[in-house]
Amino acid sequence: MTASAPSSTRPSGRAPDQLRPVVIERHYTRHAEGSVLVAFGDTRVLCTASIEDKAPPFLRGKGEGWVTAEYGMLPRATGQRTQREAARGGQGGRTMEIQRLIGRSLRACIDRQALGERTITLDCDVLQADGGTRTAAITGAYVALVDAIGWLKARHLLKRDPLFGAVAAVSVGIVDGTPVLDLDYAEDSACDTDMNVVMNDGGGFIELQGTAEGHAFRREELDALLALASKGVAELCALQREALARGA
Amino acid sequence: MTASAPSSTRPSGRAPDQLRPVVIERHYTRHAEGSVLVAFGDTRVLCTASIEDKAPPFLRGKGEGWVTAEYGMLPRATGQRTQREAARGGQGGRTMEIQRLIGRSLRACIDRQALGERTITLDCDVLQADGGTRTAAITGAYVALVDAIGWLKARHLLKRDPLFGAVAAVSVGIVDGTPVLDLDYAEDSACDTDMNVVMNDGGGFIELQGTAEGHAFRREELDALLALASKGVAELCALQREALARGA
Amino acid sequence: MTASAPSSTRPSGRAPDQLRPVVIERHYTRHAEGSVLVAFGDTRVLCTASIEDKAPPFLRGKGEGWVTAEYGMLPRATGQRTQREAARGGQGGRTMEIQRLIGRSLRACIDRQALGERTITLDCDVLQADGGTRTAAITGAYVALVDAIGWLKARHLLKRDPLFGAVAAVSVGIVDGTPVLDLDYAEDSACDTDMNVVMNDGGGFIELQGTAEGHAFRREELDALLALASKGVAELCALQREALARGA
Amino acid sequence: MTASAPSSTRPSGRAPDQLRPVVIERHYTRHAEGSVLVAFGDTRVLCTASIEDKAPPFLRGKGEGWVTAEYGMLPRATGQRTQREAARGGQGGRTMEIQRLIGRSLRACIDRQALGERTITLDCDVLQADGGTRTAAITGAYVALVDAIGWLKARHLLKRDPLFGAVAAVSVGIVDGTPVLDLDYAEDSACDTDMNVVMNDGGGFIELQGTAEGHAFRREELDALLALASKGVAELCALQREALARGA
Amino acid sequence: MTASAPSSTRPSGRAPDQLRPVVIERHYTRHAEGSVLVAFGDTRVLCTASIEDKAPPFLRGKGEGWVTAEYGMLPRATGQRTQREAARGGQGGRTMEIQRLIGRSLRACIDRQALGERTITLDCDVLQADGGTRTAAITGAYVALVDAIGWLKARHLLKRDPLFGAVAAVSVGIVDGTPVLDLDYAEDSACDTDMNVVMNDGGGFIELQGTAEGHAFRREELDALLALASKGVAELCALQREALARGA
Amino acid sequence: MTASAPSSTRPSGRAPDQLRPVVIERHYTRHAEGSVLVAFGDTRVLCTASIEDKAPPFLRGKGEGWVTAEYGMLPRATGQRTQREAARGGQGGRTMEIQRLIGRSLRACIDRQALGERTITLDCDVLQADGGTRTAAITGAYVALVDAIGWLKARHLLKRDPLFGAVAAVSVGIVDGTPVLDLDYAEDSACDTDMNVVMNDGGGFIELQGTAEGHAFRREELDALLALASKGVAELCALQREALARGA
Repeated sequence: MTASAPSSTRPSGRAPDQLRPVVIERHYTRHAEGSVLVAFGDTRVLCTASIEDKAPPFLRGKGEGWVTAEYGMLPRATGQRTQREAARGGQGGRTMEIQRLIGRSLRACIDRQALGERTITLDCDVLQADGGTRTAAITGAYVALVDAIGWLKARHLLKRDPLFGAVAAVSVGIVDGTPVLDLDYAEDSACDTDMNVVMNDGGGFIELQGTAEGHAFRREELDALLALASKGVAELCALQREALARGA
Repeated sequence: MTASAPSSTRPSGRAPDQLRPVVIERHYTRHAEGSVLVAFGDTRVLCTASIEDKAPPFLRGKGEGWVTAEYGMLPRATGQRTQREAARGGQGGRTMEIQRLIGRSLRACIDRQALGERTITLDCDVLQADGGTRTAAITGAYVALVDAIGWLKARHLLKRDPLFGAVAAVSVGIVDGTPVLDLDYAEDSACDTDMNVVMNDGGGFIELQGTAEGHAFRREELDALLALASKGVAELCALQREALARGA
Repeated sequence: MTASAPSSTRPSGRAPDQLRPVVIERHYTRHAEGSVLVAFGDTRVLCTASIEDKAPPFLRGKGEGWVTAEYGMLPRATGQRTQREAARGGQGGRTMEIQRLIGRSLRACIDRQALGERTITLDCDVLQADGGTRTAAITGAYVALVDAIGWLKARHLLKRDPLFGAVAAVSVGIVDGTPVLDLDYAEDSACDTDMNVVMNDGGGFIELQGTAEGHAFRREELDALLALASKGVAELCALQREALARGA
Repeated sequence: MTASAPSSTRPSGRAPDQLRPVVIERHYTRHAEGSVLVAFGDTRVLCTASIEDKAPPFLRGKGEGWVTAEYGMLPRATGQRTQREAARGGQGGRTMEIQRLIGRSLRACIDRQALGERTITLDCDVLQADGGTRTAAITGAYVALVDAIGWLKARHLLKRDPLFGAVAAVSVGIVDGTPVLDLDYAEDSACDTDMNVVMNDGGGFIELQGTAEGHAFRREELDALLALASKGVAELCALQREALARGA
Repeated sequence: MTASAPSSTRPSGRAPDQLRPVVIERHYTRHAEGSVLVAFGDTRVLCTASIEDKAPPFLRGKGEGWVTAEYGMLPRATGQRTQREAARGGQGGRTMEIQRLIGRSLRACIDRQALGERTITLDCDVLQADGGTRTAAITGAYVALVDAIGWLKARHLLKRDPLFGAVAAVSVGIVDGTPVLDLDYAEDSACDTDMNVVMNDGGGFIELQGTAEGHAFRREELDALLALASKGVAELCALQREALARGA
Repeated sequence: MTASAPSSTRPSGRAPDQLRPVVIERHYTRHAEGSVLVAFGDTRVLCTASIEDKAPPFLRGKGEGWVTAEYGMLPRATGQRTQREAARGGQGGRTMEIQRLIGRSLRACIDRQALGERTITLDCDVLQADGGTRTAAITGAYVALVDAIGWLKARHLLKRDPLFGAVAAVSVGIVDGTPVLDLDYAEDSACDTDMNVVMNDGGGFIELQGTAEGHAFRREELDALLALASKGVAELCALQREALARGA
C-alpha cells in the first residue's frame, strides 16, 4: 500500500526506486572500435569509442594514454528544435560541462600506463532526449570503451589490461518531496533537487553533482538520494555485464 | 554474359544499374513532426523535419514559408574519426555545400504560398557513412517533409496542399570505365566521374552536380549516367511511396 | 597528539579543519553597485555586482529578475601565464562550468519575483590564484550581491527584500588519506578526492560537486568531507556577516 | 527572322547564344606570379596566382603539388553593399562552394606530379558583379595559372610541363522559355534553370552544376543548354589563347 | 648640390619632399554611390562609398548620420601572399586600427546633423601595396565621399551641405637621417621614424600617428616631419580638387 | 590669479599642467616576474610581466627576444558594465590598438639582442577606469618590465643589460580651449583634441597619437600640448625611479 502511493506520483507510473527500461545495444554502427546505443527509456544516446595511436600533446613522451569524451545533441532530439552547435560557432557551456564529466568518469576506470600512448575518444551523441542524457551517456560509453579495449586486446596491442572495475551513472532527485531514481524529462523539469551520481561497481563514488533547484536540501535528503543512486548504479552495472556477456 | 562481367567489377557484387538495399523507416524518433531513418546500404542518415511557426527574416510579412536543411555527420560515422564541427568552431565548406543542396532540392516540391508563414527545417545527420550521404539525405528528408506536412494537415492548419510531386536523389559515376548507379564509398573513392542527380517523380531534373575526378567526361558518358540516374530515382520514388503508404 | 600529526602534513601547517585566512573587502572599486575583493589565503578574487534594468530575453514580461555570473582569470594569476580567453576567441569549458556554478549558487538565495525585471551580473575575476577560486568567488559574490540589493533598497526600488539566507562555498578533499578543509593549490594538485560544497547559512546544501581524482571515495569518506564543509561554510557565513556589518 | 525574336528578349539585346564582351588583361598587378583581370561584360574579377614552395599538409612527402582557390567579393561589388566576410567572422556557404568549384576545375588541367611539391593558390576577387562571377573567375584563373607555370618554367624549376589542356567556364540558363548563354544578373535573377558548365578545350566536361529554380527541367532542355555551353566554352578558350599569345 | 645628395638616397630617386605620382580615378566601379581608384605610385586602393538610409544603432533617433570605414587587403596585394582575413576568421589588429583611423579622419569633415539619419560606409580595399596604403585610402576615400554626397544632392535629399573642408593624408619618416615625404615600402621597412599625418585643406591637423621604430625622435625632427607633411597634404588636396573638377 | 582661472575649469580642480595623484605599487601579485598596480587618480591598472624562455615564431633562431603586451578591461571597470571580450568571442579593435601601442612603446627601451631568445609579455588589466588607461598601462608596465629584467639579472641569466632608458606616457588635450595634462574621463569625453604621448626619460618621442575630436588643431595648439606632455612624462619618470628605488 505505502509503496504504491509515491509510485503513483511519477508521471511514468514507476516506483520511486525504479529505473526506466534500459537497453544496451552493442555494435550499433560499423566503423568505430566500440559502438553502443544506450536507451534509458526514451533517452537514446549513441556512444562510439575511437582509438587513435597517439597521446594528446600534454602527455607526449610520457608513456601514458588518455581517455576523453565529446557530447552532442541532434537538433531535434528535444521537444523544441535547438540550434546546431556547429552552426552557432562553438560548443556551449552545458555541452562542455557534460563532456568533461563523461571524460573524467571514464578515466576513473582506466590505468593510463597500461593503455600506452593512445587516445580513446568517446563520442556521445543524443538521438532522442527525455532526461538523464549524461548518465545514459556515461553508462553506454563504458560499454563502448570495454569493446574498444577488447579490440586492442584481440590484436595483442596491450601488455596488460588497462581496465579496472566498471563505471555507470544515474540521476536521482526529489520530486514533490519524494526521492526518486532516474528522472525523466517531466520529473527533471519539476524537481527540487537533482543529482547525478557516477559510481563504480565496487560502490565507490567517482562523481557527485547535486544541485538544489528549489530549496536547499538537507543532509537526510542527501542520504536518501545517495542510497537510491547506489541501488540504481548496481543495477546498471549488472545490465552492462549482461550486455558485454552477449557474443561480440 | 556481357552484363555479368561489369557487374562483377563492383566491390559489392551489384549490377551496374542496381541500387543498394534501401530502407526507409518513419517515426524513428519521437519529438519531430517528421522523423525518418533512411539507409542506402551501410549509409544511414537520420532526417527530421521541424516546423516553426514563422518565416525566416528575409520572408517576413510576405505570406510565404520556407524549407531549409542542415547536415551533419557524427564524428565516427566514418572509417577514421573526423573532428566535430562544433568543436572546430563552425561548419566546413563541404557541409555547407551539402546542406544548401538539400534545401534547394526540397524547396523544388513545395508551394511556399500554400505552406504559409512557416519554416520547416530538415536536419540530416549521418549516423554511418558509406558513400552517397547527400543523396540518401535528400531521399529520406522528402519523406520526413511529407510527414511534417501531414502533421499540419491533420491539425487543419493548411488551406491547400503545399506539396507537388516527390523528390529523390541518387549518385552515378564511371568506375573503371563502367557507368554505375548509387556508388558506395569504395567506388566513390575510385571513380573517374561522380554525379549527384536530384529529380522529381515526373522525370524532371532538379539538380545536377557532376565532377570529373580523373579525365573529363564525354557527352556520351554523360548520357549514360543520366539514364542510370533516371532509372534509380524512379525506383527510389517508388520506395518512398511504399514507405508513406504504410500506416502512420 | 593524534590530531597534530595530520595537521603537520598540510603544506601550510594548517589543521585539517582550518580555513585559510579570509579577508572580505567591500567597496574595492568605485563604479559597481557591489564590489568585493575576497581573499582565501593567496587566492584573491574581485567580485562586482552590476545591476541592469531589464530581465534577460527568456524572462521578458514575466515580472521576474535574474542573477547570473561570469568568471575570468587574469593571465598571470597563475604560476604559469595562461593565454587570455579573449585572445583565444572564447571562454573554455572550465570557465563556463565555473560561472554556471556561481550563477546557480547565488540564484539559490534570491526571490526573483521580488527582484523585479532586473538582471544582476556577478563578475568574478581572479587576480591571484592559489586553489579554491570558485569557492572564494561564490563567497565574495554573495557579499557583492547583498551590497547591490542594498543599493536598490536605498533608492526605494524594491517592494520587498529579494534576499533569503546567505550562501558561501568551500572546498574539501582527501589528501594523503586525510580529509582536509579549504585546499590550496599544492593540496589541490595532490589530492585524491576534491569536492566543492555550496551551502546556505541554515546548513542546507545548494551544490555538491565531488570528483575522485585518484581512487573512488567511499561513503564514510564522503561523510567526513561533508562534516568538514559544513563547519567551513558556517565560519564563512560568520565572516560575511561581519563584513556586511561594517559601515558601508 | 526567327533568330532575332528571342534575341530581343534579352535585357542586353544579345542573341541567345552570344557571350558578353570578354576582356582578359594579364599582369594587372605587380607582385603575383600570375595576375589577370577578367571581364565578362560588367562582371570584373581579379585573379592572382601565388606560388608557395611547399605542398599542403595532406600531401607532404608525396612528391605532388596542389592547386587551390579562394574567392571573395568586395563589399560594394554588388548593387547593395554586402557585409565583409572578414567582419562577419568567416566565409559563408556560397563563398566556400564557389572556391571549391574553382579549385577542382583548375586541378583538372594540372599534372600534380609534374608540378612538384608546390602549392599554387588562385585568389579570385570580384571587383564588380553582374552575374557569372564564378565562371569568369574560372576562365580568368586559368590564364593566371598558365602565367604562374610560365614563371616557374622561365626559372627552369620544372622538369616537365604540368599543364594539359585549357579550362574555361560559362553559365547557361532558360529565361522565359529560351535557352541562353552567359547570363547577366538581370537574367540570373529571372531564370527558371541555371547551369554552370566547366569544360576543357577538348570539349570534355569537368563540372556540371545545374539547378532548377522554377520548374524541373526536361531532358531536351538540358540538351539545348549543354550545346550552348559547349559553344560558349570553345569561344572562351579561343579568347584565353589570344590573351596568352600576347607578349608577356 | 646639397639638395641632390639626399634625394639620391631614395630608392625611387625622388627628392625628399616629393610625392609619388598620384592618380585619382573616379567612377571606377558602377554600383557604389562613390567609387575611386587611388594610386600613390604602386600602391593602389579601391575606395567605394555606400549610402544606407539609416543611422547605426547607437545614433538611432538622434537625427544624425554616421561615416565609417572598412579596410581590406587582397591576399596578393603584397610581395608575399597574406592569408585572407575572412578565412582566418576575423579582422586582425592592424586592419582594425587602420579602418578606425580612416573613419575618424573622414568624420572630421562631415556635419553629421546635415547628413541626416544615414550611414556612409567607405570600403578601402588595397589591390596592390607598396607602402602608404592607409594614407592613400584616406585621400581616395575623401573623393568617394564627396561623390556620394553629390549623389544625395543630385536627388535633393539633403537640406544643407554636410561637407566642410577636405581631408587628405600622407606619411613622413626619417630614413637614414633624412626626413622624407610619402614613404614607399622599401623606405617604410628601413625608416627610423614613421608618421602618418591627416590634415584638412586649411592646414589643421586631424590625426597624427608617429612611431619611433629605431631611436626616439627629437623635437626638431618632429618639426621637420610636420613641415613635410603639411606640404604633401596641400599638394594632395589640390589633386583631389582637380579630380573632382573633372566631369562626373 | 590667471593660473587659478583655467585651473577652476577642470572638474577635478587640478591646474592645467597638473597630473593626477600617481601611485606605483610593486609586487602587487605573487606569481609574475614583475607585478605593478599603477594608479593615475581613479584609473587603476594591474601590469604583470611574464617571462617565457623562447622567442615568438617569427624570431626563432635569430638570437633575439621580444616584448609584447596584452590589454584587458574588467567588465565593471567602467561606469556602465561592458561585455567581457572572451564572452563576445574576441578582442575588439580598441583593445588591439591599445595593446599594440603598449608593446611598441616598451620595445623602444629594450635591446632585443641583449634580452636573448625570450619573450616578455606585459598584461595590462584595468581594474578601474577613469580616463588614461593606456598611458597608465605604459607607465606601470615599464616598472613591471624592469622588475622582470631584475629577476633575470638576479639569476645571472643575462650577459648584458637589455634596458636602455625609461618609458612613460601621458595624455594631453584641449578642453574648452585650454590645453591640459592627464585627462580624466570627464575631460576625455568633453575634449576637442586628445593626444597620447609616449616619451623616454631623455625627452625623445616614442609614440605620438593625436586625434581632433572636434575641430582640427592648429600648429600652435600642438606645440602647447607637446610642452605639457614633456613636463608630465618627466614627472612620471621621476615617480618610476622612486618606486624602483624602494626595496624589492
